Amino acid sequence: MAQVKVVVTLKPSLLDAQGRVVQDALHSMGYANVGQVRIGKYMELEVTANGKGDLNSEIKEMCDRLLANPVIENYTFEVVE
Amino acid sequence: MAQVKVVVTLKPSLLDAQGRVVQDALHSMGYANVGQVRIGKYMELEVTANGKGDLNSEIKEMCDRLLANPVIENYTFEVVE
Repeated sequence: MAQVKVVVTLKPSLLDAQGRVVQDALHSMGYANVGQVRIGKYMELEVTANGKGDLNSEIKEMCDRLLANPVIENYTFEVVE
Repeated sequence: MAQVKVVVTLKPSLLDAQGRVVQDALHSMGYANVGQVRIGKYMELEVTANGKGDLNSEIKEMCDRLLANPVIENYTFEVVE
């Protein structure tokens, strides 16, 4: 049983409206030293070996097909045994 | 200018409905070896030194006041210089 941590972020060239709202909220709360805020998704999956091939390539396939939108998002993942 | 990476997750005792939906979707796509899925938020903040006190305690305060809901969520953060 491996634990997989996936982080999905919006591509840097795209405006992160949600992050902008959080940045403005932090400013209005007095945290003037906060610059750009970008918001993404974090996922933890428990995965068992599938007996056919590499776990990393399976996770990559899951990210491309469901967990992230490769058109507008980047993702990274880390497998913790 | 420090970069702060914040991960906010639902407390383990709480049902993660969104994670459950993703888990079911992965199963229906043929990834039967996926167990529990839990979904959280990921945030990247650019923060400059505020000149008064510790950056870590300021980030902790931001998390408690805005970025996370301490009643139902846990958070961790990492300051990358």
